[in-house]
Amino acid sequence: MQGTVLYGPHDIRVDELPTPAILEPTDAVISLSASCICGSDLWPYRGIQPIPQPVPMGHEYCGIVEEVGSEVRSVRRGQFVIGSFFASDNTCPHCLAGYQTSCQHRQYVVGAQAPYLRVPLADGTLVPTRDVPGKELTPSFLALSDVMGTGWFAADAANVKPGGTVVVVGDGAVGLLGVLSAKQMGAERIIAMSRHDARQALAREFGATDIVVERGDAGVERIRELTRGVGADSVLECVGTQEAMTQAIEATRPGGSIGYVGVPHGVTLDGANLFYRHVRLLGGPAPVRRYLPDLIDRVFRGTIDPGKVFDLVLPLGQVAEGYRAMDERRAIKTLLQP
Amino acid sequence: MQGTVLYGPHDIRVDELPTPAILEPTDAVISLSASCICGSDLWPYRGIQPIPQPVPMGHEYCGIVEEVGSEVRSVRRGQFVIGSFFASDNTCPHCLAGYQTSCQHRQYVVGAQAPYLRVPLADGTLVPTRDVPGKELTPSFLALSDVMGTGWFAADAANVKPGGTVVVVGDGAVGLLGVLSAKQMGAERIIAMSRHDARQALAREFGATDIVVERGDAGVERIRELTRGVGADSVLECVGTQEAMTQAIEATRPGGSIGYVGVPHGVTLDGANLFYRHVRLLGGPAPVRRYLPDLIDRVFRGTIDPGKVFDLVLPLGQVAEGYRAMDERRAIKTLLQP
Repeated sequence: MQGTVLYGPHDIRVDELPTPAILEPTDAVISLSASCICGSDLWPYRGIQPIPQPVPMGHEYCGIVEEVGSEVRSVRRGQFVIGSFFASDNTCPHCLAGYQTSCQHRQYVVGAQAPYLRVPLADGTLVPTRDVPGKELTPSFLALSDVMGTGWFAADAANVKPGGTVVVVGDGAVGLLGVLSAKQMGAERIIAMSRHDARQALAREFGATDIVVERGDAGVERIRELTRGVGADSVLECVGTQEAMTQAIEATRPGGSIGYVGVPHGVTLDGANLFYRHVRLLGGPAPVRRYLPDLIDRVFRGTIDPGKVFDLVLPLGQVAEGYRAMDERRAIKTLLQP
Repeated sequence: MQGTVLYGPHDIRVDELPTPAILEPTDAVISLSASCICGSDLWPYRGIQPIPQPVPMGHEYCGIVEEVGSEVRSVRRGQFVIGSFFASDNTCPHCLAGYQTSCQHRQYVVGAQAPYLRVPLADGTLVPTRDVPGKELTPSFLALSDVMGTGWFAADAANVKPGGTVVVVGDGAVGLLGVLSAKQMGAERIIAMSRHDARQALAREFGATDIVVERGDAGVERIRELTRGVGADSVLECVGTQEAMTQAIEATRPGGSIGYVGVPHGVTLDGANLFYRHVRLLGGPAPVRRYLPDLIDRVFRGTIDPGKVFDLVLPLGQVAEGYRAMDERRAIKTLLQP
């Protein structure tokens, strides 16, 4: 089959790869309804996160089960399924506590920018829908695999409550879906930090009540004005840089919470600063598996439409343009048709 | 009056100081039933936290109200009162959110190692008891002013829940009272890290179920053994050093929480490490004021006896020996009789 391989900075190609097959009795192989490019794929694409050798790319997926291993019990051929970027057994203590991305037997899923994908630990990882959804829902179900679940975790980790004031740092797909999540959780005021017209518009559509275009100290100053000097109850950090984290910390009120889901690159935190600011911090790879049943239900009910973050749709063969468009911020998120 | 003044590293003296008087109409002056030396006083005493000039010491206090300013309404002459080391108005947004130590008008209270003390913002800061308690309760009420409230906040910030597994890093008075707090909150297993006989004994008396004498990697290894490789639900970091914080982070299970109350000195946190460990962090100067009514009630009912941390009682004139004994870890905590 044809699949995406990253060779080095800005060098992404479609190569002939072996078609995935069952390797372990707990595996499933699925035929992908769609795949996509993640903001986190841009770290290695830009060379900020070096890769030792060419790597197949893609970790977001949904589609039809083609084959299952002999020990798979909860998923069967023909079902439409969604899974997370970390396969998890969903039975270990960390999974049972709701942190499936820290599963004691977790395996990173790679190679989803392709027509077929092998998913390990299928019983723990894949969630089947009640029936095969119409194609118009594919983008939204695909979004659940990572960005929507990650935005949801950011809001959950930031302790978003009904009536609360929320700041979202980062206007990528995760940040925008963090806005949507905060809205679903009942936040009264949602301040999105963005200086990009199309993203501001989508943020407003998802529930943002205010847009702050300033960054750094000026951005924090503006948040303080908007919150009468108090700061926000909840801040979602959806970038992963030192600047974004600093902005998040300074925008949070004492006793407020930060949920951070941007993969930290070179981020260090000063213990005394966090201490005197009374800021609560929780982040990490989002335990998407925990949220999937609820989010699937919200998509079916039409309560959320996270697929709107895909503003560029390309055939898999044009994956290089998909990466370029996201790298240059011409696209929020690229959907790839296998 | 005679009061304690720190002149420089290891140079603590009793000097003649002006007797406190009402300066602002919101002040109260109290006659101290007892005062004490705090673990945090050892930072400047040891020269780790430099002082620019001689400073009066002491920020823990309880006693009888002698005089109040013209605007004070909720406290009156003759009442027995307890307050926190930060005076707070208890009406600003941060106070109302329960973070009185981040009060928008907070003032640090100093000079409590003396017979009399001026307390600013008396209405917001001081909590009177229902009647003047017997002298046998003075040590426990004094402990509420800082160490007990701080241990309680550590446990609260670490999200201690009934049935949970708790690790306490640090066997000073705060750590020991963190053990007591975790026990009060219903923790099932409380692992105290201590290599000091008398402190181990008090930890056990307060509710510790296990003692770990190892430190650093060996200490973490032992915690992992005791928790079947999972880690603790809640970890209380009651020291403030990099080593203690690292130990706390590594002892916490994914999704578990750290409450840190040791004032951080040179502590830095790696964003990516916290991210991949799924550790929740909350710390800061304990909002003792929030907990005072409940803790006062527990002392009156005899549910808690935090005064047991005072294992050395000295007249104020011998304050230098009190500091030495704590510095050399011969005493857990020194009570000073004014």
